[in-house]
Amino acid sequence: MAAAAPPPLPTTTPELNMDLPTSHPLFTRIRLATRLDVPVIHKMIYQMAVFERLTDLCSATESSLSTTLFSKDNPFESFTVFLIEASTKPFPSSSVAHHPKFTPTHKTLNLDYPISDPELEVFKSSTMEEGVIVAGFVLFFPNYSSFLAKPGFYIEDLFVRESYRRKGLGKMLLSAVARQAVAMGYGRVEWVVLDWNMNAIKFYEEMGATVMQEWRVCRLTGFSRCL
Amino acid sequence: MAAAAPPPLPTTTPELNMDLPTSHPLFTRIRLATRLDVPVIHKMIYQMAVFERLTDLCSATESSLSTTLFSKDNPFESFTVFLIEASTKPFPSSSVAHHPKFTPTHKTLNLDYPISDPELEVFKSSTMEEGVIVAGFVLFFPNYSSFLAKPGFYIEDLFVRESYRRKGLGKMLLSAVARQAVAMGYGRVEWVVLDWNMNAIKFYEEMGATVMQEWRVCRLTGFSRCL
Repeated sequence: MAAAAPPPLPTTTPELNMDLPTSHPLFTRIRLATRLDVPVIHKMIYQMAVFERLTDLCSATESSLSTTLFSKDNPFESFTVFLIEASTKPFPSSSVAHHPKFTPTHKTLNLDYPISDPELEVFKSSTMEEGVIVAGFVLFFPNYSSFLAKPGFYIEDLFVRESYRRKGLGKMLLSAVARQAVAMGYGRVEWVVLDWNMNAIKFYEEMGATVMQEWRVCRLTGFSRCL
Repeated sequence: MAAAAPPPLPTTTPELNMDLPTSHPLFTRIRLATRLDVPVIHKMIYQMAVFERLTDLCSATESSLSTTLFSKDNPFESFTVFLIEASTKPFPSSSVAHHPKFTPTHKTLNLDYPISDPELEVFKSSTMEEGVIVAGFVLFFPNYSSFLAKPGFYIEDLFVRESYRRKGLGKMLLSAVARQAVAMGYGRVEWVVLDWNMNAIKFYEEMGATVMQEWRVCRLTGFSRCL
């Protein structure tokens, strides 16, 4: 769908209307993903790989994601995915089942221009609610600090689809994980960032995060030398 | 216990004996820790904080560790601890229950000198086997790669008590985690290292690990700015 031009403003008070933004409400919801959402999660993981120019490292399939995600009954105790969904109409109330440990959160954004999303059909929500589109996701799981003797959350992926960027959805997803950490009495939320990605670093620091300059991630993939 | 000097060698073939090292066998075992091991794990976490000069950040207590570790029935699906134990005598066979997903591993080291361990009493194994001492631990838990659509393991702590260092026990603990990853079909083992700790980096690279130079860890502890 191409972006519609904003409708012409009434001309009776032009000096006022010149400063009056046209408001296009975008209703958003953050909910727990389920196995039914694997197809859209797979597409977003691939789009993330394209964005990071790492498609050669991306071997995830719908089938392998289905096997490894959502196998536990308890979200937050293992690999967990929050989806952020968007709609131009209000979400039907209680259209998504609440989980004992998480209630979907809603926020309405007032945008100056409507969203132009060329992939509306592909990213329809698995809830089958009319007009509800998956706009992004965050994949996270528990980690542990032995100094604090407390679990925390580690964020593996935070992704917002291109059409929905620069509107605060990434911050909303990160905040949702932080809120969940607070609700569960957890100590920290951690993730990694590329050291040259200054926009991301600035965004994270504004959210209150500390970038640990001295630590380096070590990765073992071929195990032959240490078995 | 102070280190005993090696006993005098027989003098009948001095030209041969000059090159003959005196062997002191050290029997080692890697096993899954249980809640009974929390007191020694707590002491080692504190020793690690002393080593890293971070005791002010270490608020773990036996009670908080007991509450947060070993609460799940399934090791490897959550926070997991392997202990490495040492004894100057062979371990009694099948003295530790096997777990369906992990069988304790044994290795005998031949040391030139006996170990001098001033904390033998404090680090007695919870198994109550005579002369079995806890020498180190590794704490790890599952992480997830969405590009691989596979879990892996993240190592939070790898620690060998001072008296047992430079004998290969750290490598044995790291190898045990890598073997477990292979056994479970996991994709990666990851951890972090301080960028100035060249000895550790050299050790990890010799084990086959890649140090990821571009990634930085972000940490959120105060959540007020993002809720």
